[in-house]
Amino acid sequence: VLKRYRAVVAYDGTRYLGFQRQNEQPTVQSELEQAIQRCAGQQVTILGAGRTDSGVHALGQVVAFDLEWSQGPTALQRAFNAILPPDIAVNDLSEARADFHPRYDARWRTYEYRIFNAPVRSPFHRQWSWQVRRPLDLALLSQAAGLLIGAQDFATFGRPTAGESTVREVRRAEWRVEKDLVLFGIEANAFLYRMVRSLVGTMKIVGEGHWSVEAFQAALQARERRRAGPTAPPQGLYLVAVTYDDNV
Amino acid sequence: VLKRYRAVVAYDGTRYLGFQRQNEQPTVQSELEQAIQRCAGQQVTILGAGRTDSGVHALGQVVAFDLEWSQGPTALQRAFNAILPPDIAVNDLSEARADFHPRYDARWRTYEYRIFNAPVRSPFHRQWSWQVRRPLDLALLSQAAGLLIGAQDFATFGRPTAGESTVREVRRAEWRVEKDLVLFGIEANAFLYRMVRSLVGTMKIVGEGHWSVEAFQAALQARERRRAGPTAPPQGLYLVAVTYDDNV
Repeated sequence: VLKRYRAVVAYDGTRYLGFQRQNEQPTVQSELEQAIQRCAGQQVTILGAGRTDSGVHALGQVVAFDLEWSQGPTALQRAFNAILPPDIAVNDLSEARADFHPRYDARWRTYEYRIFNAPVRSPFHRQWSWQVRRPLDLALLSQAAGLLIGAQDFATFGRPTAGESTVREVRRAEWRVEKDLVLFGIEANAFLYRMVRSLVGTMKIVGEGHWSVEAFQAALQARERRRAGPTAPPQGLYLVAVTYDDNV
Repeated sequence: VLKRYRAVVAYDGTRYLGFQRQNEQPTVQSELEQAIQRCAGQQVTILGAGRTDSGVHALGQVVAFDLEWSQGPTALQRAFNAILPPDIAVNDLSEARADFHPRYDARWRTYEYRIFNAPVRSPFHRQWSWQVRRPLDLALLSQAAGLLIGAQDFATFGRPTAGESTVREVRRAEWRVEKDLVLFGIEANAFLYRMVRSLVGTMKIVGEGHWSVEAFQAALQARERRRAGPTAPPQGLYLVAVTYDDNV
């Protein structure tokens, strides 16, 4: 019998053109679909919670697919991990409701952006963060992040998909420091296209002292895409978690 | 005028056949020598404190070289970092005594070995650690490490260079846990060839409960290479620091 499965997937996005399948290009979706084809001999279409961009990483992407599989989810997870390339791992796999949809059912999405804030580059952070040489002011960054909380129109920081509203509800937005890393965590019901990278690229200018917090607030309130600062590069961005209302 | 310089170098060892130059193979030494050739137009030989093996990383390798350079060490460090590939970085550069030798003058060397101790593999740790799936017992690991302190014959855990003694003085050897990582730090006056990896591979069996601490002690006291356990893989090993007696 065909059952729907739900999996939590982590990946190093460095060598992928994002999550979503694109012709013959390397994408996370096509790797997952090929792995299922190889371990179960069935052609499936993977549904994903978030279409992460080229070079963006995931710690907790959620996917779903329908499969005939008699050996239980644990064996399926093991088979998956034995076949998948080393830069993709399935961290959890379970049966789901037949109508579970990882994107439409998602209630909250959490992203993290990692800035390596040091004057000299590091061989160990280059694939995992954005290097900013000038010291960032955590207090200024935190003030800017505080303005993001609530249901607001984020048109300044990203494009909607056709015809959609640009209002999003942010329930957490905070900066913290861990040694040489300055990390931004944000949780919202959904995000506009490139919204996190646009927010980070603009707040970075605030943290460097080039823009005031008031200038950032004015940009936010302008609701015009051209008022945003530069977009931060993809290798610092992680899809950390997607949460759902109850057991789906 | 020719001056001797000293540099602290960090590298991701993944794509190198170790530190030391080997014909036309990619090594850290040859990358550094080529970078100097390109920024100063001089052919130099780099001296290194530790000949790290293929795939081994460094946070604080110390190197020295002689160069005619009139623009000061800061400009030299910048030129270096502009030319070096992204997996090598010069973190510090200064003038040194004309007879400073990073290997012969070294007083203490610190290595760290990183074990990723989790049942499912991680796309983010694969290049930086050794994955051990079975949970390791920190108390057992710590008991084994405690036996290493002092000046002892480590013939079980490594080969000496021709005719050399196998006695080494260990002044720190300890395990600690950071989230999913189990980390071994060791500081000694010098190390035998592959000694840290041989120690870690053998202590790992103790931490899994396959060998008793007494069996580990007996292997150490036997002073026979064949009594060691397996050698841990290179990607978990980091040359952390090399220290010198005074300002050299």
